[in-house]
Amino acid sequence: MDNSKIGLHISGQFNKELEDVRNKVLAMGGLVEQQIELAVTAFSTGDMEMADLVIKQDDQVDTLEMAIDQECMQILALRQAEAFDLRLLITVIKVINELEHIGDLAEQIAKIAVHLSNTERSKSNQYYELEHMGELVQNMLHGALDVFARMNIEDVITITGWDKNVDREYDNIIRLLIIRMMADPRNINRMLDMLWIARSLERIGDLACNVCEHIVYMVKGEDVRHLTQRELEKKLKE
Amino acid sequence: MDNSKIGLHISGQFNKELEDVRNKVLAMGGLVEQQIELAVTAFSTGDMEMADLVIKQDDQVDTLEMAIDQECMQILALRQAEAFDLRLLITVIKVINELEHIGDLAEQIAKIAVHLSNTERSKSNQYYELEHMGELVQNMLHGALDVFARMNIEDVITITGWDKNVDREYDNIIRLLIIRMMADPRNINRMLDMLWIARSLERIGDLACNVCEHIVYMVKGEDVRHLTQRELEKKLKE
Repeated sequence: MDNSKIGLHISGQFNKELEDVRNKVLAMGGLVEQQIELAVTAFSTGDMEMADLVIKQDDQVDTLEMAIDQECMQILALRQAEAFDLRLLITVIKVINELEHIGDLAEQIAKIAVHLSNTERSKSNQYYELEHMGELVQNMLHGALDVFARMNIEDVITITGWDKNVDREYDNIIRLLIIRMMADPRNINRMLDMLWIARSLERIGDLACNVCEHIVYMVKGEDVRHLTQRELEKKLKE
Repeated sequence: MDNSKIGLHISGQFNKELEDVRNKVLAMGGLVEQQIELAVTAFSTGDMEMADLVIKQDDQVDTLEMAIDQECMQILALRQAEAFDLRLLITVIKVINELEHIGDLAEQIAKIAVHLSNTERSKSNQYYELEHMGELVQNMLHGALDVFARMNIEDVITITGWDKNVDREYDNIIRLLIIRMMADPRNINRMLDMLWIARSLERIGDLACNVCEHIVYMVKGEDVRHLTQRELEKKLKE
């Protein structure tokens, strides 16, 4: 499905307002995507300026969320939005909430990076697994934002499918960290830092899936939350 | 502020619809509150039937969320909701999302309880700290739902204030668990289970605060997210 629905308004002004909201969501999403990448890099390289940037970016993300939220409320109050337009506005309100939460998780990773840089660091290659998990969830968010931009919901099943890999990586990392903790209890604090980062990345994957589900609702008008991957696949083929 | 605003509608039917939505949110909230209590008890007593009940309840919570969401969308589509009514409907959509998330966290605690019951259990009094933290966040949610029912937003500052105690308890528990892990690495798996539960309870406290912030927006029409406790206090006195 393309964006043509948005062009069908009698009111060109209403049309412009909806386009403006969509663009702001994509800008906010791009910023959050960058936060994930920088946070994981700051953690693995120990670049503290980068970590500080991620923490600063979170204020911008919060401000964007509140601004877009308010814009949607104004449109809802002034226009009798119906059908697709109403779903678009409500979806935006839900999606920016997920994005704000992802930004918080990226900020948490950046704060752990700062904390870790103050403790003894081991070789960066030790962080390979987390870097890879970071790339996976960043790709998921990128894909979700692309679905929002192009409304190509047939891509949703690919993105939600990636979450299985994220969960598998997460389980492996946790197992590995527990083995390292048991092998040398002096590692426990550093291993716990990595454990929190793995957990945050795993959550980001879930939130990217939520974004996809919201967009499916916007486009199809069907609530596909709490479906299994197979059920979702079936629904999208209908 | 009382509920009288809700009584001011020309359309008695619209009024009935809004009341119905509010009551369903309170029913959903009550169910989630019970999930927290049962999940923590199941964990500390090893009562597996109770843990299974919490996991089953999560399906009810998900179903309620989707039903209330749909009801709000129908009202938004059919009525030109404005001002307070519009804020009420959008707030409900946000609040049930937080409640659904709290339900998921309670379900996670119940699943850990099941996992723990399959491993060697130590004396229940070891779980005192987590039980107390569970009571704290349950009270926070109860308070938040009471604010929603009575719209007495002056109580919000008390509830968000409790979150400081939750965070303090959380930090103490994490420190304690790390000490226990270092003392005996054979404890690590069980200590990590408790660590995940502490983390879930800490998140529930945050989500209860989010619920309060949404309700302040509904009543005052002001977005008070991302404020410090002192800034929030000042805003509520305005």
